[in-house]
Amino acid sequence: MSRKVYIENMPLDEARKRWMSHLDSLGFCTPQVETIPVHNALNRITGQAVYAKRSAPHYPAAAMDGIAVRAADTYGATEKSPVYIDKYMEVDTGDYVPDDYDAVIMIEDVNFENDRARIIQPAVPWQHIRSIGEDMVAQDLLLPSYTRIGPYELASLITAGVDEVEVVKQPVVAIIPTGTELVESGSDNMAPGTIVESNSHMLSAFCRQWGAIPLRHPIVADDRELLKKAVLEMLDQCDMLIIGSGSSAGREDYTAHIVEELGQLLIHGIAIRPGKPAILGSIDNKPVVGVPGYPISAQLVFNLFVRPALFARQGIPEPQEDVLDCQIARKLPSPMGVDEYVYVNCASLPTGYYAYPLNRGAGVTTSLVKSDGFIRIPRGSEGIQAGEVVQVWLHRSRQIIDNTIVCIGSHDLAIDVLADLLQRHYGIRLISSNVGSMGGIMSLRRQETHMAGIHLLDPQTGTYNTSYLKRYMSGINWKLLTLVKRQQGLIIKPGNPLNIQGLTDLARSGVRFVNRQKGSGTRVLLDYLLAKENLKPEDIYGYNHEEYTHLAVAAAVQNDSCDVGMGVYASARVLGLDFIPLVEEDYELCILPDIIRPEHVECLINTIKSQEFIERVSALGGYNLEGSGHIRLSAE
Amino acid sequence: MSRKVYIENMPLDEARKRWMSHLDSLGFCTPQVETIPVHNALNRITGQAVYAKRSAPHYPAAAMDGIAVRAADTYGATEKSPVYIDKYMEVDTGDYVPDDYDAVIMIEDVNFENDRARIIQPAVPWQHIRSIGEDMVAQDLLLPSYTRIGPYELASLITAGVDEVEVVKQPVVAIIPTGTELVESGSDNMAPGTIVESNSHMLSAFCRQWGAIPLRHPIVADDRELLKKAVLEMLDQCDMLIIGSGSSAGREDYTAHIVEELGQLLIHGIAIRPGKPAILGSIDNKPVVGVPGYPISAQLVFNLFVRPALFARQGIPEPQEDVLDCQIARKLPSPMGVDEYVYVNCASLPTGYYAYPLNRGAGVTTSLVKSDGFIRIPRGSEGIQAGEVVQVWLHRSRQIIDNTIVCIGSHDLAIDVLADLLQRHYGIRLISSNVGSMGGIMSLRRQETHMAGIHLLDPQTGTYNTSYLKRYMSGINWKLLTLVKRQQGLIIKPGNPLNIQGLTDLARSGVRFVNRQKGSGTRVLLDYLLAKENLKPEDIYGYNHEEYTHLAVAAAVQNDSCDVGMGVYASARVLGLDFIPLVEEDYELCILPDIIRPEHVECLINTIKSQEFIERVSALGGYNLEGSGHIRLSAE
Repeated sequence: MSRKVYIENMPLDEARKRWMSHLDSLGFCTPQVETIPVHNALNRITGQAVYAKRSAPHYPAAAMDGIAVRAADTYGATEKSPVYIDKYMEVDTGDYVPDDYDAVIMIEDVNFENDRARIIQPAVPWQHIRSIGEDMVAQDLLLPSYTRIGPYELASLITAGVDEVEVVKQPVVAIIPTGTELVESGSDNMAPGTIVESNSHMLSAFCRQWGAIPLRHPIVADDRELLKKAVLEMLDQCDMLIIGSGSSAGREDYTAHIVEELGQLLIHGIAIRPGKPAILGSIDNKPVVGVPGYPISAQLVFNLFVRPALFARQGIPEPQEDVLDCQIARKLPSPMGVDEYVYVNCASLPTGYYAYPLNRGAGVTTSLVKSDGFIRIPRGSEGIQAGEVVQVWLHRSRQIIDNTIVCIGSHDLAIDVLADLLQRHYGIRLISSNVGSMGGIMSLRRQETHMAGIHLLDPQTGTYNTSYLKRYMSGINWKLLTLVKRQQGLIIKPGNPLNIQGLTDLARSGVRFVNRQKGSGTRVLLDYLLAKENLKPEDIYGYNHEEYTHLAVAAAVQNDSCDVGMGVYASARVLGLDFIPLVEEDYELCILPDIIRPEHVECLINTIKSQEFIERVSALGGYNLEGSGHIRLSAE
Repeated sequence: MSRKVYIENMPLDEARKRWMSHLDSLGFCTPQVETIPVHNALNRITGQAVYAKRSAPHYPAAAMDGIAVRAADTYGATEKSPVYIDKYMEVDTGDYVPDDYDAVIMIEDVNFENDRARIIQPAVPWQHIRSIGEDMVAQDLLLPSYTRIGPYELASLITAGVDEVEVVKQPVVAIIPTGTELVESGSDNMAPGTIVESNSHMLSAFCRQWGAIPLRHPIVADDRELLKKAVLEMLDQCDMLIIGSGSSAGREDYTAHIVEELGQLLIHGIAIRPGKPAILGSIDNKPVVGVPGYPISAQLVFNLFVRPALFARQGIPEPQEDVLDCQIARKLPSPMGVDEYVYVNCASLPTGYYAYPLNRGAGVTTSLVKSDGFIRIPRGSEGIQAGEVVQVWLHRSRQIIDNTIVCIGSHDLAIDVLADLLQRHYGIRLISSNVGSMGGIMSLRRQETHMAGIHLLDPQTGTYNTSYLKRYMSGINWKLLTLVKRQQGLIIKPGNPLNIQGLTDLARSGVRFVNRQKGSGTRVLLDYLLAKENLKPEDIYGYNHEEYTHLAVAAAVQNDSCDVGMGVYASARVLGLDFIPLVEEDYELCILPDIIRPEHVECLINTIKSQEFIERVSALGGYNLEGSGHIRLSAE
């Protein structure tokens, strides 16, 4: 058996150029138009210039509430010698002022005595009268071609008597998800190897945001004839066709073959990361894009190739992202041969904006959700050094970025509750990066985070955190804020089938352990406890199998990747596992008062002391909230 | 008869403070929630923290297309001594990797010989395998409360097995337009005094943009009982009630009375311009806002008081507008006692951004449509001096502002065609301000415009434009670009009922003339022609009645405000009027090569020379396009 691996590696710039010129040759970049009632036109794009159909106002109109008069009748009026007028007409704003009158006097300046109006100031001809066409004259150009109709434009069109408007047709984008491993969301069949199909929904959402209409086909299994049938069926109904997944060189990847068979395969494989196995081509003069299966790859290919196409099709420029200059918080190596896109969080520190790279795995959808934007490491670069200033293309507003607290360090479920409550009650975003307690202390030292969650036991003294801060943070101003005390222990399967009673059982044959990563407080604690029991790492099967959070440890036990792990009670409890408590430890927040905004500290402390926080964290189990929210210690 | 004029004049800041605290006391700022299927959740706001319902991946998954192997079987493989493996499993990206295997080798690195896989490099344990929960672990916090669900969040929720999500309810905003003078759009009844109701549609559009659901009531006539009935009917169905118009002190303004009768009238009258007669209160614990009838006032009150309320109701911060520092192009006096909002256009010049104030009339909806943003002249300020730097709160993107050509000067219909084609084919926005040819020359002199449209006859020489530029523009670099030659003449009623044959008829008794404003080229031309005929301004009835554009002159003739005016043939023709040609004149664009971007000049010239421009302008009538698009003259 052999499989043809024919993926190219075309540079991104060239691929974009070829693609746009291919679209031009297909006539795809010429907007199509349709006529619709003006009341449906919100957010649509004008298809041609729109001219006013009538003047507004179409009659001389009172600009104020008051009385219409002949200006000549008011001449000479002063406070001392008022003028009394018989011939006047009461008018409200907008009323027709007949030819008999040529001025309006504001009601505030009129006194009525019997049926006469008493005036103490002369009126100037045409005062407070809006002339015909003051707003617009019939045949005035209201909106040029390819202009978005917002609330103001809508009101103006209605005022101008434009009841129907020619607008650009919304492009229809058909999306076919393919893959035998895919199941529809909501399905109960979640056997190993199945994947919930989510890409088509993400891409559909993008279509809507970009003014297009998505048309989703149900999942098509990896069967060349079935896929071909779906392609032909959808082509009839759309302006552009997206085929999801199946664009790598896997055995069941028919997309490229089908494009080649039915139309023109323009490009297969682009030198980008992620997103390399993209497919670009056309069938029946309609553009076809094969997007990779990994969500991050899929959205990147979609953003790079479908977005510009859809905006061109609608006659409007592709909106530019806001760009923010940021110092990058850690080194990012990158292969020379590709344009790489790395998603990052951003936050404002006194020394400028910082960008924190997120997990680069192409399957890690949570990186996209967390991210504020991306950086591009261009072809020919080997990567970015820590501290280098890079441009971040934002997809989140600066308003949110500016109102962000960064917490780098150890993970705890109470941090999630804190994040939720800060957002909920103060509109403050808390972003946390789980790099373990020691990683947190290193970030504090480099002053690239507002705070860190830490729980580091000093084996010499049996106390938490203080000695580490004194050792590593000399010369830096810090405060230690009590978050929670929490139960650490062994997370085991429900019913404890292996009858694990304590740490010594970890060395038993047939017991598979899962550890936390080096530098995490839990790892320090484990090593301390093992030493006390005279147990050695090499005695424990799985000591080198590392996970990065308490929940990941618990999930590994739940999924039978192992039998036992060490972590907090709450993570055992939320996954329905059993727990053997070993020790209560101090989990504290070390904040940098010179880095974090004082109002953020206030909100932080208020939140931690709040009844809602106490109740929600207590409900997780294994927490002790005595002293939570108090500053326990400050740098000397 | 007497009318109670009870409008207050509360400072804006105080009004906003009282209003927000009133909303708080009503419980309006507490978001309401509902549970909806995840597939409907795009752009909705989470109502509470969302946690993952399952891990992803939920099984060890191949991260590449290739073969699953036991890493131990591959040890020692090199190019020189390949290893042949019998026990392997072909896998595609995403496939389940059963417990029997612990590594995946990329398909590119495998050769198959019969049924055996030939490997030339050892596999590292767990390479190219995604561990369970790599993306997310069950019970991970996916989204905190009050987070918008975009495409990424949607995909992540689906992946996490979240089929239903608790989201913030969209606030329902009932809008009742009131006014006996109002007619529904599309109505044929356009008698003098009638106004097409457009405000409610504009406000509805804003509601949609802000995440709320508008509920529009049909127009209610000025009848207290009818309005009261409508108010009670709508209150039941909404979270907030807007009563349109009827908020001034006019005779038929029942809104404030009804709010006072049925609930609490908090504020009536705010020291802002426009928008003073705003009404704020509540009925049945639901906030009620009375917005003024003028469109600009209505939207301002809506933006200042309804927008923050609706965002608070949804738990998210009010999005901040982008702010741009601009030099103001002309003086803006403003009353001391009010916060005034002035709408402006913006453009980029080599010396920085400029803001061009638009017509401040509260009824001029076209000012809103044209505007890029507004400036705020605070209470206590007498206004802004020309050249002063002000902050502009933008509602249009900088991308559009940066791609704008400013044309200040005379008006011509060909400029509208030019604007449309520049937008259509190059995505360049042309904004024009009609201040007459002399006004254009003054703007050129101050170098605050990219170009000006001018047609100034030198009475001494009978030539156009050149002598004015030489006189006023010494030391400034300019180029004169031919736009069109055009027919100027007398615009008269169809069939010429007054039998006007030429200029001398303007002095006839019973003939009402309408003039163009001082400084316009047409006015200069008229004065020249009158002098040649020995006619004096005082001989002509209406010589001082001024309009600002050709179309406005034609509209005045059409509406019988006068019998005859002077202007271009095209404006007579588009309004179906008759025309007596007098002279063909040169209408030219004077551009400033040091100010305008070279690529904009190129697009300008290409457009003017294009067949499409020639055809569309020719079709207007009265134009001669010989030489259009050529540089006729440059500064020496």
